[in-house]
Amino acid sequence: MSNSIGRLFVVTTWGESHGKCLGAVIDGCPANLHLTPEDIERELARDIPDIELGTKRHEPNKFEILSGWQKNRTLGTPICLIIHNTDYKSIDYKQFQNLIRPGHADYTYVEKYGHSNLIKGGGRASGRECIARLAAGAVAKKVLSCFDISIESKVVEMAGIPISSKEDYQKAKEKALLEAKDGESTGGIVELRVKNLSTGAGSPIFGKLDAVLASGLMSIGGVKGVEVGAGFSAAKMKGSVCNDEFYLDQGKIRCRTNNAGGLLSGISTGEDLVIALAVKPTPAIPRQQKTVNIKEMKETTIECIGRFDINFTPRVAPIAEAMAAIILVDELICSGYIHPSKISTLTKI
Amino acid sequence: MSNSIGRLFVVTTWGESHGKCLGAVIDGCPANLHLTPEDIERELARDIPDIELGTKRHEPNKFEILSGWQKNRTLGTPICLIIHNTDYKSIDYKQFQNLIRPGHADYTYVEKYGHSNLIKGGGRASGRECIARLAAGAVAKKVLSCFDISIESKVVEMAGIPISSKEDYQKAKEKALLEAKDGESTGGIVELRVKNLSTGAGSPIFGKLDAVLASGLMSIGGVKGVEVGAGFSAAKMKGSVCNDEFYLDQGKIRCRTNNAGGLLSGISTGEDLVIALAVKPTPAIPRQQKTVNIKEMKETTIECIGRFDINFTPRVAPIAEAMAAIILVDELICSGYIHPSKISTLTKI
Amino acid sequence: MSNSIGRLFVVTTWGESHGKCLGAVIDGCPANLHLTPEDIERELARDIPDIELGTKRHEPNKFEILSGWQKNRTLGTPICLIIHNTDYKSIDYKQFQNLIRPGHADYTYVEKYGHSNLIKGGGRASGRECIARLAAGAVAKKVLSCFDISIESKVVEMAGIPISSKEDYQKAKEKALLEAKDGESTGGIVELRVKNLSTGAGSPIFGKLDAVLASGLMSIGGVKGVEVGAGFSAAKMKGSVCNDEFYLDQGKIRCRTNNAGGLLSGISTGEDLVIALAVKPTPAIPRQQKTVNIKEMKETTIECIGRFDINFTPRVAPIAEAMAAIILVDELICSGYIHPSKISTLTKI
Amino acid sequence: MSNSIGRLFVVTTWGESHGKCLGAVIDGCPANLHLTPEDIERELARDIPDIELGTKRHEPNKFEILSGWQKNRTLGTPICLIIHNTDYKSIDYKQFQNLIRPGHADYTYVEKYGHSNLIKGGGRASGRECIARLAAGAVAKKVLSCFDISIESKVVEMAGIPISSKEDYQKAKEKALLEAKDGESTGGIVELRVKNLSTGAGSPIFGKLDAVLASGLMSIGGVKGVEVGAGFSAAKMKGSVCNDEFYLDQGKIRCRTNNAGGLLSGISTGEDLVIALAVKPTPAIPRQQKTVNIKEMKETTIECIGRFDINFTPRVAPIAEAMAAIILVDELICSGYIHPSKISTLTKI
Repeated sequence: MSNSIGRLFVVTTWGESHGKCLGAVIDGCPANLHLTPEDIERELARDIPDIELGTKRHEPNKFEILSGWQKNRTLGTPICLIIHNTDYKSIDYKQFQNLIRPGHADYTYVEKYGHSNLIKGGGRASGRECIARLAAGAVAKKVLSCFDISIESKVVEMAGIPISSKEDYQKAKEKALLEAKDGESTGGIVELRVKNLSTGAGSPIFGKLDAVLASGLMSIGGVKGVEVGAGFSAAKMKGSVCNDEFYLDQGKIRCRTNNAGGLLSGISTGEDLVIALAVKPTPAIPRQQKTVNIKEMKETTIECIGRFDINFTPRVAPIAEAMAAIILVDELICSGYIHPSKISTLTKI
Repeated sequence: MSNSIGRLFVVTTWGESHGKCLGAVIDGCPANLHLTPEDIERELARDIPDIELGTKRHEPNKFEILSGWQKNRTLGTPICLIIHNTDYKSIDYKQFQNLIRPGHADYTYVEKYGHSNLIKGGGRASGRECIARLAAGAVAKKVLSCFDISIESKVVEMAGIPISSKEDYQKAKEKALLEAKDGESTGGIVELRVKNLSTGAGSPIFGKLDAVLASGLMSIGGVKGVEVGAGFSAAKMKGSVCNDEFYLDQGKIRCRTNNAGGLLSGISTGEDLVIALAVKPTPAIPRQQKTVNIKEMKETTIECIGRFDINFTPRVAPIAEAMAAIILVDELICSGYIHPSKISTLTKI
Repeated sequence: MSNSIGRLFVVTTWGESHGKCLGAVIDGCPANLHLTPEDIERELARDIPDIELGTKRHEPNKFEILSGWQKNRTLGTPICLIIHNTDYKSIDYKQFQNLIRPGHADYTYVEKYGHSNLIKGGGRASGRECIARLAAGAVAKKVLSCFDISIESKVVEMAGIPISSKEDYQKAKEKALLEAKDGESTGGIVELRVKNLSTGAGSPIFGKLDAVLASGLMSIGGVKGVEVGAGFSAAKMKGSVCNDEFYLDQGKIRCRTNNAGGLLSGISTGEDLVIALAVKPTPAIPRQQKTVNIKEMKETTIECIGRFDINFTPRVAPIAEAMAAIILVDELICSGYIHPSKISTLTKI
Repeated sequence: MSNSIGRLFVVTTWGESHGKCLGAVIDGCPANLHLTPEDIERELARDIPDIELGTKRHEPNKFEILSGWQKNRTLGTPICLIIHNTDYKSIDYKQFQNLIRPGHADYTYVEKYGHSNLIKGGGRASGRECIARLAAGAVAKKVLSCFDISIESKVVEMAGIPISSKEDYQKAKEKALLEAKDGESTGGIVELRVKNLSTGAGSPIFGKLDAVLASGLMSIGGVKGVEVGAGFSAAKMKGSVCNDEFYLDQGKIRCRTNNAGGLLSGISTGEDLVIALAVKPTPAIPRQQKTVNIKEMKETTIECIGRFDINFTPRVAPIAEAMAAIILVDELICSGYIHPSKISTLTKI
């Protein structure tokens, strides 16, 4: 259970980090969507890690569309996407045998599933799992593009350095690399922006669009916080500042500011959706840390020597876009904006 | 749709702010739970607003248990709880006719549902809606109490003042009252703590416990951000600091720190769950703000004179507890810790 | 769990047979639907039992609309309907104490929920539970009426007598009354017909419309079989007879016969939906039957003296209509035929 | 949407009849289940059609387990099973271009999805789709076998001939072959029996086990009716005959007869579950039938020359078992009988 997301546009992911392949099944994609292999390739390519910041595990992310698709058009039937794992070295993980890595899922998974041996490489609780989200997100983005809805993301903080320019990013990267020399990893903040979403999308109460997005984004490994619009700084604002006043812009109701982040009571205002995510530092670090050998139930230490990102904030960005795309397509179908079975009869929102 | 939450323990709320009554239906509560009217009364009483900070709308929150319950025991059938609205003055809302209040759901609801008239008093998009969550949360808390799991909350920041003592709280309250004299509202931050949750609760990938909790908490009106454990400050930490090292405490695996907030890959570690919520300032303020008359489609101004909280952060706290309780009971049933139909056969976690 | 049905149009029922009241919450009903108390009253009145065939328990079925509705229009928020129980005599059930009635839910409920005492009068496992389905069905029918979709039902067999005229019905009723003199109950068959449903409603594979309808109809107490179109007689047909040939009727594709019952691969053909339900004889009969005293775990006998229908087939008919209406509205919203939030923007199918 | 079934044990199927492959993702299978390739192979082999009755399309049903499984043990993560299509000749379908086959999904799918061309070979609306159900069912059966629950099926009527012996089956088969010489197809009835299911499984009201099973079984292509226990014949019975009297058998409550088919109010009594399914004759027959060319919107005729079963009743039997197994595992997890995450902690029901 829980490897699926969505109500009418349902994405199910499967596959372990170090198995043969991972994949996603997308159920409820309207028929007749123009979809090319390049649409998916382009998104998967965004997961190729930064040569300096990223893991040394590099995969070409070769994929196949196994169903639901013919001659660059979707059929309305479930789309199964498969991504092959090619750069898998199980040997990396021998060193951790029976050791639970601090900050990792090793301990909680063994408690939940009772595996006698820890799954090598984290199994599903690995960043690699997200490749299937990227693939499904590519399809969702293609649906959104029919309505001129676009999703952008950027790293706005890394290794403690705020980023608003290329120079800032370079500075932050150098900081991250410097820490890495010391065997340290670092984190950061990603900002997500959805443009051109019409007014009225989202559901009330438990289905508020911010609630659903918060859930989807918090489900990305390493994300420890989500905020919408002004977020935590709203807690420090006065009402007259926080409220976004309304005005008329060529007959359309608009907001002068966007502290709400495009959502009032969980329903879209027509302004950009703006959401930020906090990403924690990579837990696997080549420094000695205290831990427990769960077989012998003895205290010991661990050093994670392997191919791990020294900062995976930049890799979270496209995955956050994918999650937002998946959730928005589902919401727009459920809200009656996107026709559930055929793209041809879609009316622009 | 979307007025329900949960998979096996499902809470559905209904009722408008200014209708006769509001209520909740709780489906999937195990039979034979000892539940008294006082259990519910106690939680509902927590919604009585602070005389100074709160709305002047005061309700005794008279309630009835209409089903699923007999002689202080649950039957295993759906429990319908009803809370009567008694202090309802619709006249308050005439002043806003056709005006969309900045920061409120007025605009988005009219776009979504196409009401020719705005619903008086916000309908479902009112803080009053949460009284039904409190009632359902009381039942969920009673279930949790059978396993010695408790949930606490506190306001850790209000009107920009950090709070770690009664004196701090008093200082913050004075700040809020001072702002209120100027027609301003203020916000704050609530911290939630779940104690004694066993290891292994939560589901992987899209069903991570932090994801599900984030969704439930973000669904509370006015909440703009959610963070787990170190949250946004994790983004600034080094790996060796952020990671919670493991040790053995009388044969039990424990963590020395709790930056993870009790969750690794969405599954509980056995440490306290720690979650923070950002609450925005009350949008309805007695200051002139720019808005639009949506009937005449003309720009105008609005002043919200009425019975509104000047800071509703303290009121969010018990609701956050209720949401966490509801989500946890569902998760513990789905995770196999709590028996889905009868409380007598429950094994302690 | 499981007291709800539907995906976007969700009906949840609650209440025990012999409690104060029963009710339904309808979530996802589009706003602006014209709905009068008479619309509901009319359907509830259909549950008043036949003076001769039915139980002697007669209730006026007084109801209230507690939410989601104002000035004869729905608001788009959940509609809570409550029906008061007035003719409740718990004394009837004392005779059965600790005895499990053959053909009744007494045994299975006690096994599932572990009640130390059997719930008086069957609790939720009573025909009375269906009054909430009727109320919710009335709302669903009103939605369907906006699209000229109508649902009809008739008893086509009772007490073993096939019925195709008023005379047949009279004959069958006499047969049932004759059996009743002997302390016997009887069953029958109900046929359901949905008219004017457009082509293309229904979902593939596990969501086939016949599958969803079969589930909803089989969930009615006492229903032991469901068939679509030719049903079990299709098993005896040759292919050329069973297949419904297509032809053109004023530019519209039609079928000459309707053995498919209006559904091919779970999706509507545009012909009438035709479904039949088998109803078993009332299990509570005033004849001595063997049973077990579950407290003493001793074999004994039971005679059910009380107010029970001698044949409840005619009472199943309107409930079957209600279930079909609820399921169809959900399906038509999910299929993109009915707008999920506002009735005004509905395009005729 | 709707290509998934289940709540905590969720099966999603994908793949077209004439694509490269079909598959199933099983989410929620407990970890540590002993599962061998042979377990799946055995079930898939049951789909090899009878040489005389079946289609001439013969496939070895080569499959792979892509995830969720290692060293003959499940991991608790989603199990993706893939079955390759090998015997695919798209040329078969050219003859039907733009013609909608009577009794087939051609017409309803084109209406729903708006495909400009009909999908070759029926796409998902083909009997071939069920191979993925068989594969998932094999896993479900393996789970059930840990609790000694078994599922059996048999053809009890074929081509109008009732079957209670091998001789009867031979007679029925000859009848079917005789009809086939005349270009006709025939149908039949399958009986399903679940043994050793404990008392108390199933959920009340809309989640009754018979309702859920009816839905799952009716979702199999060609099934037009489902009945539980006495089914439609219950409609003709007297109450005293239909009721199954209780007695004590070595301290266990049992029923002397089983007209209820093992279910009272949707919850299992501990007796065998007994369910029958009506299967219609194969719609694709090599006889001239009237139809419509949907491109030219002209009446015409069609003859289905191809590789079609002349009677697919025997092929429905194992699929019915698979569906029952899938539904039962889900129900037993949701009812608290099977632990949701690990097989080792399972207590016998």
